[in-house]
Amino acid sequence: MDYQRVFSQAIDRLHAEGRYRVFIDILRNKGAYPNARCFAGHNGPKPITVWCSNDYLAMGQHPKVIAAMEEALHDVGAGSGGTRNIGGNTHYHIDLENELADLHGKEGALLFTSGYVSNEATLATLGKILPGCIIFSDALNHASMIAGIRNSGCEKRVFRHNDLEHLEELLAAEDPETPKLIAFESVYSMDADIAPIAAICDLADKYNALTYLDEVHAVGMYGPRGGGISERDEVAHRVTIIEGTLGKAFGVMGGYIAADRMIIDVIRSYAPGFIFTTSLSPVLVAGVLAAVRHLKSSSVERDGQQAAAQMLKDLFAGAGLPVLPSTTHIVPLMVGDPVKAKKISDILLAEYGVYVQPINYPTVPRGTERLRFTPGPAHNEAMMRELTQALVEIWERLEMRKAA
Amino acid sequence: MDYQRVFSQAIDRLHAEGRYRVFIDILRNKGAYPNARCFAGHNGPKPITVWCSNDYLAMGQHPKVIAAMEEALHDVGAGSGGTRNIGGNTHYHIDLENELADLHGKEGALLFTSGYVSNEATLATLGKILPGCIIFSDALNHASMIAGIRNSGCEKRVFRHNDLEHLEELLAAEDPETPKLIAFESVYSMDADIAPIAAICDLADKYNALTYLDEVHAVGMYGPRGGGISERDEVAHRVTIIEGTLGKAFGVMGGYIAADRMIIDVIRSYAPGFIFTTSLSPVLVAGVLAAVRHLKSSSVERDGQQAAAQMLKDLFAGAGLPVLPSTTHIVPLMVGDPVKAKKISDILLAEYGVYVQPINYPTVPRGTERLRFTPGPAHNEAMMRELTQALVEIWERLEMRKAA
Ligand SMILES: Cc1ncc(COP(=O)(O)O)c(C=O)c1O
Ligand SMILES: Cc1ncc(COP(=O)(O)O)c(C=O)c1O
Repeated sequence: MDYQRVFSQAIDRLHAEGRYRVFIDILRNKGAYPNARCFAGHNGPKPITVWCSNDYLAMGQHPKVIAAMEEALHDVGAGSGGTRNIGGNTHYHIDLENELADLHGKEGALLFTSGYVSNEATLATLGKILPGCIIFSDALNHASMIAGIRNSGCEKRVFRHNDLEHLEELLAAEDPETPKLIAFESVYSMDADIAPIAAICDLADKYNALTYLDEVHAVGMYGPRGGGISERDEVAHRVTIIEGTLGKAFGVMGGYIAADRMIIDVIRSYAPGFIFTTSLSPVLVAGVLAAVRHLKSSSVERDGQQAAAQMLKDLFAGAGLPVLPSTTHIVPLMVGDPVKAKKISDILLAEYGVYVQPINYPTVPRGTERLRFTPGPAHNEAMMRELTQALVEIWERLEMRKAA
Repeated sequence: MDYQRVFSQAIDRLHAEGRYRVFIDILRNKGAYPNARCFAGHNGPKPITVWCSNDYLAMGQHPKVIAAMEEALHDVGAGSGGTRNIGGNTHYHIDLENELADLHGKEGALLFTSGYVSNEATLATLGKILPGCIIFSDALNHASMIAGIRNSGCEKRVFRHNDLEHLEELLAAEDPETPKLIAFESVYSMDADIAPIAAICDLADKYNALTYLDEVHAVGMYGPRGGGISERDEVAHRVTIIEGTLGKAFGVMGGYIAADRMIIDVIRSYAPGFIFTTSLSPVLVAGVLAAVRHLKSSSVERDGQQAAAQMLKDLFAGAGLPVLPSTTHIVPLMVGDPVKAKKISDILLAEYGVYVQPINYPTVPRGTERLRFTPGPAHNEAMMRELTQALVEIWERLEMRKAA
């Protein structure tokens, strides 16, 4: 048994497929976002503009968030020092759980160290608690939900992306007495489309299924208080469990679920990924508290972000670039080839000071490799025109097809 | 299908077994650790002494750590804004990975959002990369390793805790050509004993197995530079993968592995729990960098902690309290019953202002419920004498057996 050979073959496969990943070494400049410094290569850090951050509203730079974190740092210190059960439960954690429960109109909420862990731990645990449960999963669900479903040991039925007929067909085929859970997202971040939540809840009612909704790319971003698409569409009360992250629109780090008290208590009591880990640093929790509270009462950031996204989509479309039909704040540009996607990204960084990461398999299906832009309230029109011009030039240089 | 009934039965089972967990609501007072405030109940916060924190060296309160976090907060902001591959890689992450690789004398290191995730993601991924791999797992391994092993889909052989003969028996029974991985911890935090790392590496050599060592309770704590038991015993170079946390002796939050460059690259490239999640906040990473660097050159904290632990063990033993034979910095007191363990903990908090969490199933096997004390450099002799006196009084009040 030659371990080194197996490992090096695994790496060779990635190179051969053009999807070996090299991490770009950057530091954002607080107060000047989307401005950042890039450490790639030569002559020290070089200024760049970031176009692919998921800190969608720049809350990670917001004075209220920074001030709250600084205060917590000085009040209680760096880390929690323990699991939630053993020494790591603080008043900050409890306050934030109450704030998030309120945001989604639910009885309770539960914090996790990340959105990934909240999905994995909750789905895996639900599946184990409900004997014989079948999980109905949207074909484009995020890797963390797929991991949770697999680790639940449940049978899984995959329905075609946002396809209600297919979902109903699969639901109808099972015994009415079998426990069922429908797992899906609101905003699909790589395709930039939105799930028909109300219609999925109708099916859940009809077939007595629970619903699990990942609002990771929507919390803070949609709805009058930032409660996500389920708030915007006024259907939050119909969804059994709403899951979100604290690391994108809320600008910090961590994840959570919101649901009725009983379900929160079950996950809190049974999920290993919640129980056996040091709790979120109170410094992070304090920052998120400030971000959530701010975005509950301010829509300025959301409005600015939506306007920026619309402008960029219009500019891309006007220039004949193959922008995907996005109904959300995300602007995906289809390339369809991993090597080309990486090449465009490299040219943008080296020649134009533009940082946008190519999105390759396994993040998206093979053959649908793309660039994914996330303009924020601080990306101005001049930046967007320059970016569009740069892309047009590269598209021509690489002799790539434009949209019709 | 009545979902509410299933959920409420799951909660009822916990109550019936006396292991339903209620989180204590506390805030530590920075600068005055182990002093804290407890929000349980009436009349506002009440001062308590924390005896069960895993911030073993109080690094979460260290001025260098606080200063580094404050600086990062003002320099780059609250969160990373993305996954390591998409916008969330910063210079801080790279520096810390280099620092941790150096700490363990390895070629590389990889950061995760927690120690739990580092164990789960690494073991699950290794098991998938190595076809037909069998994982040999110590019977007392932590829940996060157990999760990783289960999710790897590999066959598992459990060897009796720290039992070399049993481990060899199991290794010898398998085909020499089969890939093998031995997964174990250095310091077992609930039993307070230490693995024979060198002897396990001898077996790994003999049977051509890889080794995976969880040093979560040892990093920062043992070895001249805080490299853990593997540094103290001078065997780090013999261990394939060393795993650690940033949330205990380093005082902040996060986890990592250290290994040769190829293995780091494989995990970095294939582990969903690493790839598909927002990276650690640069604020946390900056704090850990300061903590690791400080503990590489200072042994004052380690020495103070070991002296405090020895004194508490001696006081407990002298008073006839059933302290487990601990060769480490952890002081476990056996109770053997979940209801009594909780009762003692409740009395300590209500009457003595002492916070120590009862440790019940599933954290330890049923029938071995215990209290687990983690005295630190700042717990002084007067506090320890008071604690010992309080325990003796409670032991008599509850008519519990003393040690021989
Ligand atoms: C749809 C979706 N769910 C969950 C996650 C994980 O959230 P987090 O980054 O907080 O781990 C992500 C991305 O990171 C995501 O895109
Ligand atoms: C042995 C062991 N490994 C791993 C972990 C997980 O580390 P973290 O708290 O950083 O998730 C813990 C405890 O939390 C542990 O005790």
